[in-house]
Amino acid sequence: METLPHCETLLLEKQGPALHITINRPDSRNAMSLQMVAELSAIFTEVESDSSIRAVIIRGSGGHFCAGGDIKDMAGARNQKAGEGEADPFYRLNRAFGQMIQQVNESSKVVVAVTEGAVMGGGFGLVCVSDVAIAGPTAKFGMPETSLGIIPAQIAPFVVERIGLTQARRLSLLGLRIGAEEACALGIVHQAASSDTELDDMLAHALERVRHCAPNATAETKALLHRVGHESMSGLLDSAAEMFTAAVRGSEGTEGTMAFMQKRPPAWADTK
Amino acid sequence: METLPHCETLLLEKQGPALHITINRPDSRNAMSLQMVAELSAIFTEVESDSSIRAVIIRGSGGHFCAGGDIKDMAGARNQKAGEGEADPFYRLNRAFGQMIQQVNESSKVVVAVTEGAVMGGGFGLVCVSDVAIAGPTAKFGMPETSLGIIPAQIAPFVVERIGLTQARRLSLLGLRIGAEEACALGIVHQAASSDTELDDMLAHALERVRHCAPNATAETKALLHRVGHESMSGLLDSAAEMFTAAVRGSEGTEGTMAFMQKRPPAWADTK
Amino acid sequence: METLPHCETLLLEKQGPALHITINRPDSRNAMSLQMVAELSAIFTEVESDSSIRAVIIRGSGGHFCAGGDIKDMAGARNQKAGEGEADPFYRLNRAFGQMIQQVNESSKVVVAVTEGAVMGGGFGLVCVSDVAIAGPTAKFGMPETSLGIIPAQIAPFVVERIGLTQARRLSLLGLRIGAEEACALGIVHQAASSDTELDDMLAHALERVRHCAPNATAETKALLHRVGHESMSGLLDSAAEMFTAAVRGSEGTEGTMAFMQKRPPAWADTK
Repeated sequence: METLPHCETLLLEKQGPALHITINRPDSRNAMSLQMVAELSAIFTEVESDSSIRAVIIRGSGGHFCAGGDIKDMAGARNQKAGEGEADPFYRLNRAFGQMIQQVNESSKVVVAVTEGAVMGGGFGLVCVSDVAIAGPTAKFGMPETSLGIIPAQIAPFVVERIGLTQARRLSLLGLRIGAEEACALGIVHQAASSDTELDDMLAHALERVRHCAPNATAETKALLHRVGHESMSGLLDSAAEMFTAAVRGSEGTEGTMAFMQKRPPAWADTK
Repeated sequence: METLPHCETLLLEKQGPALHITINRPDSRNAMSLQMVAELSAIFTEVESDSSIRAVIIRGSGGHFCAGGDIKDMAGARNQKAGEGEADPFYRLNRAFGQMIQQVNESSKVVVAVTEGAVMGGGFGLVCVSDVAIAGPTAKFGMPETSLGIIPAQIAPFVVERIGLTQARRLSLLGLRIGAEEACALGIVHQAASSDTELDDMLAHALERVRHCAPNATAETKALLHRVGHESMSGLLDSAAEMFTAAVRGSEGTEGTMAFMQKRPPAWADTK
Repeated sequence: METLPHCETLLLEKQGPALHITINRPDSRNAMSLQMVAELSAIFTEVESDSSIRAVIIRGSGGHFCAGGDIKDMAGARNQKAGEGEADPFYRLNRAFGQMIQQVNESSKVVVAVTEGAVMGGGFGLVCVSDVAIAGPTAKFGMPETSLGIIPAQIAPFVVERIGLTQARRLSLLGLRIGAEEACALGIVHQAASSDTELDDMLAHALERVRHCAPNATAETKALLHRVGHESMSGLLDSAAEMFTAAVRGSEGTEGTMAFMQKRPPAWADTK
């Protein structure tokens, strides 16, 4: 990603090994449009093969993270009919969002969500697939879908993975809106900042930690975490031992061991 | 359910779209008898096809929720022998409770548990399958089974689903008894009230939220949540996109969209 | 286990129905060596068939629980080559640790971890398979692997089981080091003591509770908990009803029922 691609709905800025994505539709509180879904998906595809990027930070412009689905896209889908052999436009719109969410969830990079203001519907879903989520003092989280007569179809499954069935059923069935402290207690976000300065410090600390951790080892660890519960534990541990062997005998494992013995930081921590 | 069925162990009262069930065996701290299991199961079966009911509230009379299994039923099972080809009376008693719990867990209605005093054994299991659980200041929760030489057979699996293996193993293996605050921290209940008034307010708020959420969308969302972790995420999201399409094109989705545009409450929120 | 086996890396002491294991390599902050893995595994194998033991307590000497893998073993594996048809020495070293962890996780005894000082890497993994984990005021928890260029291969899967994917991804991908309070909030440990005296009291209370719970019922309950999520709920509950029937008709169920009626402690609670 020598030159960053042009996006209509996103601002992109690379700072060292971190790509900062700013959702930039402040007039609609950064509502998640079809175009935004396509652009996020394209970015995460490119990032995947770019070894200079180790973390992707997502936040919103204008004081909001993302207020949910775009109303114009919804109206457009309602007025469209599916062509012969085609899926319903609502199906395509909904599933496209879910596919992007799955992609972000499984990204080999460390994904950090910085949340402020409205974090609703699709925005809520996006936070639920981040590796590190931080909330500012104004953040409000919720799945208002059932109060609109629809369902949080692509979102609710990731909410269950994020915070478990127990909390997901209350939040989604009552269509509740909760603040940063409660979102932190439930595990939607990992940290709730009491000020913008603290929010910036938390982000800086997370990125500092990313710098200290070896990029490939981090990606391998993330892939391993995603497999837990989907295969037998013994088989997974056998496979993990092979991953361990490759890592320890590979270039990062060799450099990490040497740096440790020589009491110096490893090469990957030097990135500015 | 034009006329409410007669029950020996339960008091029933319909208030608008909510059915209030009061467990009513105060002399035995509402111990869960075979008859109570049968009556709860019958009620939840009837409720399932009654579109006028959107929430079911369960609480106990006399200051206790439910102190666990009924001692007379246990003694009766001990003195009985299984007929030829029949299951052991203990097996039938135990499994019947578990079947009722499974039914409540998967009810398409919003199930609210209001807990006070003893919430032990079977009572503890019942709370663990509610969508919204609130604890009053006197509530005490526990699985005392192992201290009696038996096992929380139909209960422990739902406790693991409720609060995860980590907390379930400590609670059940040590036979601990915990208060409302700790039960809330662990996720057994969602809220702990510091007074009876606050308990009433929490219940009223939950029912108010039920009113604002579309009944079919709520039922569909609940069914979706229960599928997470039991099938592949991609297949589940495909199916969820179909559910979304049906919901948004259905009568609730149409009404919800119109109400939103017209800045008025949707029809389903008007129920008194 | 009439006479306790001799161990190089562990101190063993039996007190009533509890076996106290002290990890005893204070010079290396109790680093987890291959020999220690083998000795822990041997002890847990012996304990399994010893009905006089109901709880196993693991703690470390010299103010630390366990600082992670042993550096000499790692250096040894690096200099070794696998013989023909043999697994890589790193594979064997890593997988042996994971096999021991699996064994401790599924032990039929109540496993209590008492944590102080460094609880890192392999030590962190060991805590994550305990039934009851208590932290003293000095305890520090972390998975530093990725900062060394390697991966927490045998550990991370148990961390996901312990605290869920959401918290596991942040902790492991950022290689964070956290204190006792945060470890308790995340569920790595169940209780955080503010002093050594409180730590001792928490341990004494847990062991007192073990005494009150019937040994076989406890073992059966633990086995049941481990099956949740790995088979269909209905099939599991059918099997659990059979386990219940055997327990209630067995000697512990009979004694427990009689003791309850006669308002006396059951025989198993009398152990000194």
